[in-house]
Amino acid sequence: MPIVLLSDFGLQDSYVGAMKGVLARLAPYVPVIDLGHQVPPFDIIQGGLMLYQAYPVFPRKSIFVAVVDPGVGGPRRAILVETDDYFFLAPDNGLLSMALAEQKIRRIVHLTNEKYFLKPLSATFHGRDLFSPVAAHLAQGLSPEFFGPELTDYERLAVFVPGFSADAIRGQVLSIDRFGNAITNLSCSFLKRHRPQGPWRVEIAGRRFEKILDYYAEAAAGEVFPLFGSSRLLEISANQASAAASLGLQRGQEVLVR
Amino acid sequence: MPIVLLSDFGLQDSYVGAMKGVLARLAPYVPVIDLGHQVPPFDIIQGGLMLYQAYPVFPRKSIFVAVVDPGVGGPRRAILVETDDYFFLAPDNGLLSMALAEQKIRRIVHLTNEKYFLKPLSATFHGRDLFSPVAAHLAQGLSPEFFGPELTDYERLAVFVPGFSADAIRGQVLSIDRFGNAITNLSCSFLKRHRPQGPWRVEIAGRRFEKILDYYAEAAAGEVFPLFGSSRLLEISANQASAAASLGLQRGQEVLVR
Amino acid sequence: MPIVLLSDFGLQDSYVGAMKGVLARLAPYVPVIDLGHQVPPFDIIQGGLMLYQAYPVFPRKSIFVAVVDPGVGGPRRAILVETDDYFFLAPDNGLLSMALAEQKIRRIVHLTNEKYFLKPLSATFHGRDLFSPVAAHLAQGLSPEFFGPELTDYERLAVFVPGFSADAIRGQVLSIDRFGNAITNLSCSFLKRHRPQGPWRVEIAGRRFEKILDYYAEAAAGEVFPLFGSSRLLEISANQASAAASLGLQRGQEVLVR
Repeated sequence: MPIVLLSDFGLQDSYVGAMKGVLARLAPYVPVIDLGHQVPPFDIIQGGLMLYQAYPVFPRKSIFVAVVDPGVGGPRRAILVETDDYFFLAPDNGLLSMALAEQKIRRIVHLTNEKYFLKPLSATFHGRDLFSPVAAHLAQGLSPEFFGPELTDYERLAVFVPGFSADAIRGQVLSIDRFGNAITNLSCSFLKRHRPQGPWRVEIAGRRFEKILDYYAEAAAGEVFPLFGSSRLLEISANQASAAASLGLQRGQEVLVR
Repeated sequence: MPIVLLSDFGLQDSYVGAMKGVLARLAPYVPVIDLGHQVPPFDIIQGGLMLYQAYPVFPRKSIFVAVVDPGVGGPRRAILVETDDYFFLAPDNGLLSMALAEQKIRRIVHLTNEKYFLKPLSATFHGRDLFSPVAAHLAQGLSPEFFGPELTDYERLAVFVPGFSADAIRGQVLSIDRFGNAITNLSCSFLKRHRPQGPWRVEIAGRRFEKILDYYAEAAAGEVFPLFGSSRLLEISANQASAAASLGLQRGQEVLVR
Repeated sequence: MPIVLLSDFGLQDSYVGAMKGVLARLAPYVPVIDLGHQVPPFDIIQGGLMLYQAYPVFPRKSIFVAVVDPGVGGPRRAILVETDDYFFLAPDNGLLSMALAEQKIRRIVHLTNEKYFLKPLSATFHGRDLFSPVAAHLAQGLSPEFFGPELTDYERLAVFVPGFSADAIRGQVLSIDRFGNAITNLSCSFLKRHRPQGPWRVEIAGRRFEKILDYYAEAAAGEVFPLFGSSRLLEISANQASAAASLGLQRGQEVLVR
């Protein structure tokens, strides 16, 4: 099963290459797939969202290595989370919380066994020295308990969880994608659970939308509208145009569903 | 044989990762190669050019999955084109036309058989839900006729075809590459066919060049000149400098060969 | 063993895809790993640094193909360097010199045997037409002597070598990474060899630092400090901030260690 890499290391430096070098050395026959490395530096929200959006299509037992790690070298824990379907390795800073909310967790392991780290362990690059070798050993068949003691919980980020007010569900924009779609933290299943009556009206940036469309070409060219995107999150989109530019949308911006 | 991916999904979001997840699940032993994902959003010309430039060096029976798809979810068709050498999957919007002009086509299939799509099929991400699973099944050996009925034609983009006037061949700049080379739609073979006498004089942006050089270092540092680039298209280049910046060249700009 | 690619071709054009197409055709079962392609155009220093930082973690007998090649098509030589641990292919322009300074060289081969090039050999894209096919044949087991005659030396870049003055070691900033770390040409081992007494004081941009830290979280948020980075080069860093922006650091800037 593949090792899937997500990080904020970018592609302009040697960091991603170094992770792949370690994996090629320790797990030469395991496929390595890039989920993405252009997460803005230290941006746990964007990293967590990307993982959430992509992980469900990967084969069972895939090993996700997610490294957005502003606290590297400090007291933050490195963890391995085994679920019914997958393995996730990451710093315990909330990066996994959006994906794990949907997964049945079997165990959480604190990655402390230095036997499986590169030596000397650098204090600044655990993507290369800790997460990659542990992922390689895991891919080779080593059981999670070898890597450290079990934990009972992991960090969750509040930003991924929508709120409520008397008459509306209150979400926010998590990310603006390359096409200018504003992707929110409101999933279709969440809305169905908490506001099953429908139809839903969407309010954002002083605009109100009475209808959630099904696909881009349903709208006129340039028209802005809400729809559920490919990961079933509510998005504000535009047909062949940037919704974010049209409405001046930004990350963190509030969106209401009534 | 590999599956080769080209798209305008960029690397900052999870879209490319999601395509690779589907391929890893459905065709785990098939190599996946990135031809490129930084095509500007909806830029069929740049996507079509990149495919044209790179496809001939790939091994026979490679499967190209090209997704620059502004009409996703609307009436545009998804197609599979089998040629003597390769398979090409793409939305039928002209993206394939520059590459296919050189290939002997065996059949064109309209991808309609939902049996081979992800379910539910999203209306916004056919790269993940339609093209990737069809490519995976094709790579596993399924014959093209399983994916839908045959078509008799595909969309062609006029921009890839040079024009003529009384005394010149009229081309245009298709792309400015990373180094500032201005790549035109005038191939060496096209010029040889239509103006075999030579020598060729090149005119662009008010400049006239009497000679087409063979390599960069033939010119002085910073000098601008035409040459046939690595894909045998006429380029306006400069030695260790950006020709586009030097002459103010832009995409769509006319180039004449007399 | 893998073929590892480093270049300044970027990801917006088809050049990297074309290299991979050649490798897929000539060495279909050899893993290909991207070390990076976002080296700024013609930037031999950044390319040489990236290779230096990443190569030691790759498995023995890896084949590095490094193409930052402003002199392509001109008189510069294409070389293959075999060391005790690895193979390196590159234009002979200094790109390899930082990495090779640490390696025991077995032989240097001038890549002249056209039998192993693509035909016709373009004058502008040796990454595709020369380095990729030679790397593929090497990966398939062909011995270095098949590719051309032996050479006795290779180009070295002076910028990678620190200097001395009466009372200090004089280095310079080679690169600013994605996080704003300013990476210098002063390695920990170099400092230990030439100034073993310690402790080291670091001066840069009018600032003096009395202590070299061990990890980011040791400093207050935003604080600037020197540390030895993950490749054991002296870096000027900041905790969750950009040291380069904070101090106005640039490439080429002098750093003194006393």
